[in-house]
Amino acid sequence: MKIALYQGPSPAGATEAAFAVVARTLAAAAAGGARMAVFPELFLPGYNYPDQAEMAQPLGGAWCARLAALARAAGCGLVVGLAERDGARLYNTAVAYDASGALLASYRKVQLYGPRENAIFTPGDRLCSFDLAGRRVGLLICYDIEFAPHVRALAGRGAEVILCPTANMLPFTHVGRVTVPAQAANHAVAIVYANYCGAEGDLTYAGGSVIAGADGAVLAMAGPGEALLIVDLMAPDRAVLSTQLADFRAVD
Amino acid sequence: MKIALYQGPSPAGATEAAFAVVARTLAAAAAGGARMAVFPELFLPGYNYPDQAEMAQPLGGAWCARLAALARAAGCGLVVGLAERDGARLYNTAVAYDASGALLASYRKVQLYGPRENAIFTPGDRLCSFDLAGRRVGLLICYDIEFAPHVRALAGRGAEVILCPTANMLPFTHVGRVTVPAQAANHAVAIVYANYCGAEGDLTYAGGSVIAGADGAVLAMAGPGEALLIVDLMAPDRAVLSTQLADFRAVD
Repeated sequence: MKIALYQGPSPAGATEAAFAVVARTLAAAAAGGARMAVFPELFLPGYNYPDQAEMAQPLGGAWCARLAALARAAGCGLVVGLAERDGARLYNTAVAYDASGALLASYRKVQLYGPRENAIFTPGDRLCSFDLAGRRVGLLICYDIEFAPHVRALAGRGAEVILCPTANMLPFTHVGRVTVPAQAANHAVAIVYANYCGAEGDLTYAGGSVIAGADGAVLAMAGPGEALLIVDLMAPDRAVLSTQLADFRAVD
Repeated sequence: MKIALYQGPSPAGATEAAFAVVARTLAAAAAGGARMAVFPELFLPGYNYPDQAEMAQPLGGAWCARLAALARAAGCGLVVGLAERDGARLYNTAVAYDASGALLASYRKVQLYGPRENAIFTPGDRLCSFDLAGRRVGLLICYDIEFAPHVRALAGRGAEVILCPTANMLPFTHVGRVTVPAQAANHAVAIVYANYCGAEGDLTYAGGSVIAGADGAVLAMAGPGEALLIVDLMAPDRAVLSTQLADFRAVD
């Protein structure tokens, strides 16, 4: 199963430009044989855009309709981070649509990062996974992936792949470099970690988006600039696959 | 606090040679200002030595007396993996002595790896930590370090450093390269991961011993051959230090 990952600058509130990026990325991803393309966290309207509340939309609103239509038009599924409004509450959400434009799942970020996110968003309260072409796929967002219990919980439910929009900024370069490949290896699950690059307001993003195989192999990694990565999540090297899920012993 | 790490071939049953390595390594480590030197897993009598039962000794036996004397003579503490006999049972154990030759702790490996270890040893049932020069230090052995709950438990008890004898073999090169730095970064604890190199019986060790700072920085890493690494576990970059212990949210 081929998966595409888009790394680029934050739309910073320019949602028309964001949809244009989604449209041309999906066209390229489909041409490259990808079944699904993963975009960064809060791609709508942009991660560090100051007024998330002004921009946020409900699930099933105009943003979602447009994402579904773009997926259908390109014949390629997508996972996009967006600011979700649900009544008075805002969530840091990722939606997944398949290549026919059907909603596969929506997921609300559990591990909100730092005072700004915690001031704006309500944390999610459940993990989520769905079937894609006969493989179980989970969603996590950014800081979530750094917590082994969440990765372990998805792997325990049979997830073979975790798609993870992110907005990882300097100085945290270790996350793409070591944390993501290690979480993949330790839990025998492939991880697609799609980050921003460039600066937005007071943040400079770390780039370094990575696709790690279930054996921890780095299948593709981006540098500091815009990148489209398309790789086949090949059958991992079974001799390296972790057996942690079966082996764990609880101790004092 | 300076810590030394020894990477070298397995003694393969030649315990006199092993004690000679310990003696000369401690002398060099002390000359380099190290407070403690960490040796690989089951260094006595050697990890892949076929008859562990024949060689294993009780805690406080001749091996331990000799390790304590060597530490005292060099003025440098040590952590050494050894086969421990306790009545009819064998444990895959690490002992820690300080620079005066006083026993700091002994720890029995919890996560025995693979059928061979499980056939020979009884798993340990508790984690362990001790104070060294005002810093809390934990012990883990090899496969233990790949399990986030054990690292998290030690970090939760205030451990700032985990000393980890190991015997990591090919093809598992990802452990030193990504898992150890990621466990360090994710739990804000420095990790000293002392491996073998070379071949012993049907195993080829991965080398690649690593000392990772509590911010995930690789402070030193060995290649495929014999190496002595001595580094200061500097104050980590606080801007990178994980806040996972406080931030974790349990979800369904």
